[in-house]
Amino acid sequence: MSDIQSKIQEHLSSRASLIGKELAGRRDYQYLSIASSAEKEAERIVREIRQHEAETVWNSVHEGIPHVFPGMGFLTAKNIIKTTRLYQILKKMPKGALLHAHMDGTVDSGILLRLALEQPAMHVCVPRRLDYMSLSGLRPSFKALPPALCAQATDAPTITSALYIPYAWVPIQKAREEFPRELGGPAGFDSWVLGAQRISAQEAYETHNTPAKIWHKFGSTFVVADGLLGYEPVLESYIRELLRTSIEDGISYIEVRVKFFDKTMVRANGEDDLTHREWLVIFDRVVQEVKADMKAQGRGDEFVGAKIIYSTLRFLSISEIEWYLEDCIELKKEFPHLIVGFDLVAREDSGHPLIYFLEPLLRFRERQKELGLDIPFIFHAGETLGDGDSTDHNLFDAILLGTKRIGHGYSLIKHPMLIQKCKELRIPIEICPISNEILRLTQAMPNHPLPALLNHGVTVALCSDDPSVFGNTGLTYDFFQVLLSSEVTGLITLATLARDSLAHSELEPEEKKIALEKWERRWALFVEEVTKETLPT
Amino acid sequence: MSDIQSKIQEHLSSRASLIGKELAGRRDYQYLSIASSAEKEAERIVREIRQHEAETVWNSVHEGIPHVFPGMGFLTAKNIIKTTRLYQILKKMPKGALLHAHMDGTVDSGILLRLALEQPAMHVCVPRRLDYMSLSGLRPSFKALPPALCAQATDAPTITSALYIPYAWVPIQKAREEFPRELGGPAGFDSWVLGAQRISAQEAYETHNTPAKIWHKFGSTFVVADGLLGYEPVLESYIRELLRTSIEDGISYIEVRVKFFDKTMVRANGEDDLTHREWLVIFDRVVQEVKADMKAQGRGDEFVGAKIIYSTLRFLSISEIEWYLEDCIELKKEFPHLIVGFDLVAREDSGHPLIYFLEPLLRFRERQKELGLDIPFIFHAGETLGDGDSTDHNLFDAILLGTKRIGHGYSLIKHPMLIQKCKELRIPIEICPISNEILRLTQAMPNHPLPALLNHGVTVALCSDDPSVFGNTGLTYDFFQVLLSSEVTGLITLATLARDSLAHSELEPEEKKIALEKWERRWALFVEEVTKETLPT
Ligand SMILES: [Zn+2]
Ligand SMILES: [Zn+2]
Repeated sequence: MSDIQSKIQEHLSSRASLIGKELAGRRDYQYLSIASSAEKEAERIVREIRQHEAETVWNSVHEGIPHVFPGMGFLTAKNIIKTTRLYQILKKMPKGALLHAHMDGTVDSGILLRLALEQPAMHVCVPRRLDYMSLSGLRPSFKALPPALCAQATDAPTITSALYIPYAWVPIQKAREEFPRELGGPAGFDSWVLGAQRISAQEAYETHNTPAKIWHKFGSTFVVADGLLGYEPVLESYIRELLRTSIEDGISYIEVRVKFFDKTMVRANGEDDLTHREWLVIFDRVVQEVKADMKAQGRGDEFVGAKIIYSTLRFLSISEIEWYLEDCIELKKEFPHLIVGFDLVAREDSGHPLIYFLEPLLRFRERQKELGLDIPFIFHAGETLGDGDSTDHNLFDAILLGTKRIGHGYSLIKHPMLIQKCKELRIPIEICPISNEILRLTQAMPNHPLPALLNHGVTVALCSDDPSVFGNTGLTYDFFQVLLSSEVTGLITLATLARDSLAHSELEPEEKKIALEKWERRWALFVEEVTKETLPT
Repeated sequence: MSDIQSKIQEHLSSRASLIGKELAGRRDYQYLSIASSAEKEAERIVREIRQHEAETVWNSVHEGIPHVFPGMGFLTAKNIIKTTRLYQILKKMPKGALLHAHMDGTVDSGILLRLALEQPAMHVCVPRRLDYMSLSGLRPSFKALPPALCAQATDAPTITSALYIPYAWVPIQKAREEFPRELGGPAGFDSWVLGAQRISAQEAYETHNTPAKIWHKFGSTFVVADGLLGYEPVLESYIRELLRTSIEDGISYIEVRVKFFDKTMVRANGEDDLTHREWLVIFDRVVQEVKADMKAQGRGDEFVGAKIIYSTLRFLSISEIEWYLEDCIELKKEFPHLIVGFDLVAREDSGHPLIYFLEPLLRFRERQKELGLDIPFIFHAGETLGDGDSTDHNLFDAILLGTKRIGHGYSLIKHPMLIQKCKELRIPIEICPISNEILRLTQAMPNHPLPALLNHGVTVALCSDDPSVFGNTGLTYDFFQVLLSSEVTGLITLATLARDSLAHSELEPEEKKIALEKWERRWALFVEEVTKETLPT
């Protein structure tokens, strides 16, 4: 061998060893290194289809969409994604647990509206008469009213009438039916209401194209949804829909963040006195019903349950937070199997940083010790573009406060010491790819820090955050976007993310064991199905 | 102390220690920890002005600019930046070395055009008659012609004439003077030529808003500039301008990448036979003249010189590359003080990866050993959004091939093993913030991986890449954008970047020592000036 040839060999072998070392530090390595031949075949097929679609679907002109590429902005990509074979395949993949989603941002807004329209007690109001000029600027408020107020509202002029009195409640059905033809009639009512609950492509990519501006719209969508959801019959159906659509998407377990802010909500009879305790009873009942139903259908492997991360708002005062912490403890006492964590929600960059609540949070932990309870912190932290500011520093406090997982951790990649801590303490990051993109932390998936975190060996669970606001449901689109934006990531990487989501859930050890066994059975079936896919020619 | 109080103290002290450890891993820590009281005062003043301008300038409505925030896209921010006090301060800061800039993308395009207009031999042609419809789609080609061809071209119909013959050369002055009024007259000619040399906000942020699309425009700008620059008298003035404007911007040393592709260029007499060797003679002469002139003005501290990184194109074949490698060696023999590195340029995602050229590159190194020469590799690598693809993997090859620095290293943050190697081997990253943003790797500075790399302890030199294409000159804007997008980064961080740029230049040890001493003297003067700034009220 000539001198140059030996130098080439030396280079190639150092190169292979360095790249190999990096891959070996990733979470998916353990599975890749013991993959069955069927798994390897499925991996290969998925990579071939991805490559083929990169050259065809994502390399074509799509009318009305200026820039098309793999991992592009979800709101313009969605209709293209749906047409791909990769999406059809991923749709069937068992996704494991959904560990980061906000209850009131999960079910398709169209379904929520349909559920609300079934309720005669549901009413709508606006701050002033709705007309062609004000349509896009005004958003509806909803509330279910008690019978006496319903009777009063029956003959009230509708929200589009010249006689409309600002803030007067109008029956939702009436408002819809009498929605004037020049505003689109009933269908125009629906799109007005849905537009107030979803972020549009134009908002995300044009008019509100900064984190601060899009959060303005984002926050307002919950005000609309919460009015509809704050009514017992709607809530109950909503929870059922959440579970059903998640199951259809391959999700077998959910830890949902429920925002407890209003101290009561409206019960079926129209009275505004349904307590947090009763809320949990409803949730519990629906989960048990769906579980029983799935079992009866012989689909017991597809659903193991749902639990709650008690959440309240990070812009509250210390004394307000203390009330909710105590409320959380009381609920945990009665529903130990349901309440599995505590979190603070709303925009991190605007609300108080965790350090502001240090004392009540530490007291909360002490109280639990005294009472023999365990409500782990599962904090949002680092959902920001800030570097070294108080939001970015939430990561330090979350970890030091013993957070079991980190919600978003978008800025974690900036912190070598914290990456190390997350690996040592086995703290997974709940990454919400589509949420981060639509909320403008990243312009598209190729710029997302996820591939960097995976290469640094961090444990990750993919999550959807608020899919209904993003015109999304389930986790398939999030898995899809992640698969499209990295050559390292393949099907077995996605399986690792799914497994890790169950492994890092707050299921009891025995429940978790069963959930993982069920997942492995479904994964084997899925892999078999993928191996039967024909390759693109 | 109560139990809770002691837990609070414990938390706060663990927090301070973790944050402190992270800061101690940064390159700027060594300087922060020994900062003089004047430096601390300057640091504080700059932070206060930044904070004040974040709340005023960057939090105001600016007509015609939809989204305003600190670190926003440069092409729309530029006119705002120029009005800030922070910019005025940074303008005066000694920047150290400019280590990554492409010769033909450095001098303001308006100046280049003015230089070309002074040359009667300079001609322009277009592929077909230029009119209102074709104006934005056609770009000019320029070339200096020998006297015989000049004579023939004198009476040729101009590029906008109905009689224009495609590709016929027209004297540049004539084309300009006869540019029709409906296309804007001579000023319209100028903006057409300048538009072909610069990326506009509309292109970067709307019509060409992906890396692939903007590179299409980016690449075409060099074809225009190279036609003007390929003429000896223009080149000579251009080099002088590069040095002068850099000096005015506080840059005291330059290692410029010169693209050697055409084997000859046009000499003053119009003949196309000026060799690479003669090119270097011109460069050397201008550098010496400017040095002497600065010394004569008593400004010797402001300029220590300029050297060349021999560059050719990464889309050439192996046999073509071999010719340029040999050419580079021959030039190094004659100009050992000028040729200080070798690189491959053009879009990494489109050209061959480094591994493709492994054999000729290794042979190049062996040849140097035989000849007792040292031409280090200073490679572009990882200027990509790819993850695990061949462009991303250029980082492995660059480092294994012993690169002295890494150009861009945009995807380095994804590679924990390589971050470690860069730290161990003291390989700095030439980060080009504005280039990365305009070439759509990141939408704005808050999404750039620079803050992450700094926290990981990587050595960085800020660079401008191709400032003339970006409507930029010097390094002030790059320093500015970096300062605005991190709370960790302050004036002393910028000083660290400046010092490191000199420390990691290819200056000879004695030259480097002197360059650093000169920089320190200027830094001390600058700090003193900053401390005299009045604080915002
Ligand atoms: Zn969230
Ligand atoms: Zn470059």
